[in-house]
Amino acid sequence: MRRCPCWSRVRRLASAPSSRAASDRLDELAKESTAAGSGTMTALAADLETPEGRATVSSLLTSNGPWVLVNNAGFGTRGRAADLDAGRERAEVQLNVVALQELTLAALPALAKAGDGGVINVASTAAFQPLPYMATYGATKAFVLHFTEGLAEEMRGTGVRVMALCPGPTQSEFGEVAGVNDYMQMMRGGMSAAKCVNIALNAFDRRHAICITGKPNALLALGPRFAPRALTRRISGAIFYPRNG
Amino acid sequence: MRRCPCWSRVRRLASAPSSRAASDRLDELAKESTAAGSGTMTALAADLETPEGRATVSSLLTSNGPWVLVNNAGFGTRGRAADLDAGRERAEVQLNVVALQELTLAALPALAKAGDGGVINVASTAAFQPLPYMATYGATKAFVLHFTEGLAEEMRGTGVRVMALCPGPTQSEFGEVAGVNDYMQMMRGGMSAAKCVNIALNAFDRRHAICITGKPNALLALGPRFAPRALTRRISGAIFYPRNG
Repeated sequence: MRRCPCWSRVRRLASAPSSRAASDRLDELAKESTAAGSGTMTALAADLETPEGRATVSSLLTSNGPWVLVNNAGFGTRGRAADLDAGRERAEVQLNVVALQELTLAALPALAKAGDGGVINVASTAAFQPLPYMATYGATKAFVLHFTEGLAEEMRGTGVRVMALCPGPTQSEFGEVAGVNDYMQMMRGGMSAAKCVNIALNAFDRRHAICITGKPNALLALGPRFAPRALTRRISGAIFYPRNG
Repeated sequence: MRRCPCWSRVRRLASAPSSRAASDRLDELAKESTAAGSGTMTALAADLETPEGRATVSSLLTSNGPWVLVNNAGFGTRGRAADLDAGRERAEVQLNVVALQELTLAALPALAKAGDGGVINVASTAAFQPLPYMATYGATKAFVLHFTEGLAEEMRGTGVRVMALCPGPTQSEFGEVAGVNDYMQMMRGGMSAAKCVNIALNAFDRRHAICITGKPNALLALGPRFAPRALTRRISGAIFYPRNG
């Protein structure tokens, strides 16, 4: 599991916009990885926005283990919530919040019993302050951060590792899907997915409860501590105001 | 709408453990209020943990307006997530997060068009830091706070008011349901519901984006700014560790 370069590819694959394409690409990756001798990899396509998809994956997590569960699936949307497609905003909560909680809760009892394994939940630097014009996305990531930190403290000393991964801009399909390529450019294109994964796994090995990828991102996440919340809202709003329609 | 003493009763009623009892009590309140000449009040019972219940209320919000929508329904659970009933943890997310987002999104377009009305989303002082042993609850309230602050900034200047209400311990049935009566006692029993509602409506009139009820609660909410997150987790965990089973 550790230092597997495939993770960065999985990360990219998981954020693919079409579930069918993602399924094909995961199968391809599994074959590649197995052929390269880095263990047998099995791909399982499931739409985590649906109760059925979540149940499929949850049942795996309860029946075997201990696992290291990585909740990486998620997407963002940009614009004034009053104008955005409400169905997609709701789907964002289903994937980023409902699925992440359900899968984590499915895995936890077996992990606790084994005193081994763990959970990495992918939050974001978006979790540390509200994000006007990405209000749903920012809120889902605040959920992930607070939920995961809570669990990390509950499981401290049991052998089970729980970590919230908070990447900043990362080279993946997220920017395209969320419509934040301008922000990605402002942040010099973001960190490579491989580097992000390496930082994350190092932190997980050291039993960190939170991993913010890279010092500039860690500094950004500290910012809201020193500003009134109204100022933080204005600044975030000015950054994410959708200039291109 | 303003200063209506019924609000504090609605607040208590909405947190009643049995939906049937709540429905009867809401009907009773509606009759009382109408008889007292404070306008016609209509009670509508809907289980917001279900898609059907949410759809019933959402359809009302889209077809009329502008409203002042108050998302007050919510509950908490206490214990190590690995040991708690996963079904109830998931229901907590359905009510505190999914329903609140769905109803808010249903109301927003009509509010934005009218440039009037607003939304009060009930978060909590639990939103300002992770809550080990109430991990789901704390995370849902972080969602509510960040989502609502994001919307408040998006709607600033449009005439639509959006506010996150962050009460500390309040005299309601919440403590009983969430199993935090020990914490309520530690906090001297909490604020009366009537006082909480008055503070909230005053802040709403002044177009505040956040209302933390009372200075001691506001100070508590500031605390996490000045402590490392690991220390905050330990302190919260020490407070909410379930001593009574």
